[in-house]
Amino acid sequence: MALLDTLHWRYATKSYTNERIAQDKLDTILEAIRLAPSSSGLQPFSVFVITDPALRARLTPVCYDQPQIMQASHLLVFAAWDRYTPARINDFFAYSNAIRDLPDSVTDDYRRSLLDGFGSKTPEQQHAHAAKQCYIALGFGLIAAAEAGVDATPMEGFDNQAVDALLGLAEQGLSSAVMLALGHRDVEGDWLVKLAKVRRAKAELFVELD
Amino acid sequence: MALLDTLHWRYATKSYTNERIAQDKLDTILEAIRLAPSSSGLQPFSVFVITDPALRARLTPVCYDQPQIMQASHLLVFAAWDRYTPARINDFFAYSNAIRDLPDSVTDDYRRSLLDGFGSKTPEQQHAHAAKQCYIALGFGLIAAAEAGVDATPMEGFDNQAVDALLGLAEQGLSSAVMLALGHRDVEGDWLVKLAKVRRAKAELFVELD
Repeated sequence: MALLDTLHWRYATKSYTNERIAQDKLDTILEAIRLAPSSSGLQPFSVFVITDPALRARLTPVCYDQPQIMQASHLLVFAAWDRYTPARINDFFAYSNAIRDLPDSVTDDYRRSLLDGFGSKTPEQQHAHAAKQCYIALGFGLIAAAEAGVDATPMEGFDNQAVDALLGLAEQGLSSAVMLALGHRDVEGDWLVKLAKVRRAKAELFVELD
Repeated sequence: MALLDTLHWRYATKSYTNERIAQDKLDTILEAIRLAPSSSGLQPFSVFVITDPALRARLTPVCYDQPQIMQASHLLVFAAWDRYTPARINDFFAYSNAIRDLPDSVTDDYRRSLLDGFGSKTPEQQHAHAAKQCYIALGFGLIAAAEAGVDATPMEGFDNQAVDALLGLAEQGLSSAVMLALGHRDVEGDWLVKLAKVRRAKAELFVELD
């Protein structure tokens, strides 16, 4: 299926069957998320891949009782760095330079510019920047799922602090940014699959300056 | 090419040839961006599709002289809503309900909950939320480009206020969030294409809770 057909096929699934998604499809989705680009390549987040039903039962009330939390085959929680600490930035460059077989001297100026740049931002600004990187990866996960014939729901509707507490994120220097439910659509039980996809017209969304 | 191969092929292109990308490929990339999901479906942004060389010359210094601004075939600027105004929210529901042939009464509770929810946020929080939606669309644009064999560069390194001023965004209730350059890689002139792609290991990035 060509990409645009795939994007018409996908929708924010509101009801899932109890079918578990195939492991190879899950692996492809996670690999696409892993390969998503991020600012300076830092990948400033972790992704929690949740199947545990007891944990999902605890998450449900702080996700406003959305049924996908329990129904989905897998629930992914993107948890962004709370801060771009010097240790995190320095560790990234050590790792990256080792893979690329580059001496640290090649990247030291750039590394220091990131330390200075992030160091001058408030913790809230740092987390907001990290959270935005999660959304690129979310987009990659959404397309990878659709291309694999897996349904998905991007979810922002949850109590971030309560989710953070349930997953112990603060202790890990993380804070929840966005979720992605994965599974297979329950066509009979899903009100949204029956409705037309709504998007702003091309002439409304795009402004050509040429 | 399978998705994961495509994602290994793409990279944040640092130098472009002067080849213009084919119109049908541009159209596909823009359509993928248009079809990207967003919170509540509001698509709270506009995308400026820039080819004008004079404008790009003015943008270059406020984009820290990155050569892609001039070199790329097309430069996309994602400009997020500065606020979720009642007019914008109400207009969306009127538009969506017309397409879906639904009476407004069906969505009035949800519409009011959005008016209340966004109304209780600061302007900075509203813009930050809108900007995050741009990053999903950025991800869709990146994959659509790669699948079409078009190179791309996601770009955050620019002076947002100066870009806003050059594009007259404040007058349109918008503020720049992120850019996407599109074109064809200059293999000889690009230092990054020669380096290995660096991503955190799967076991580092993902935490399984089952």
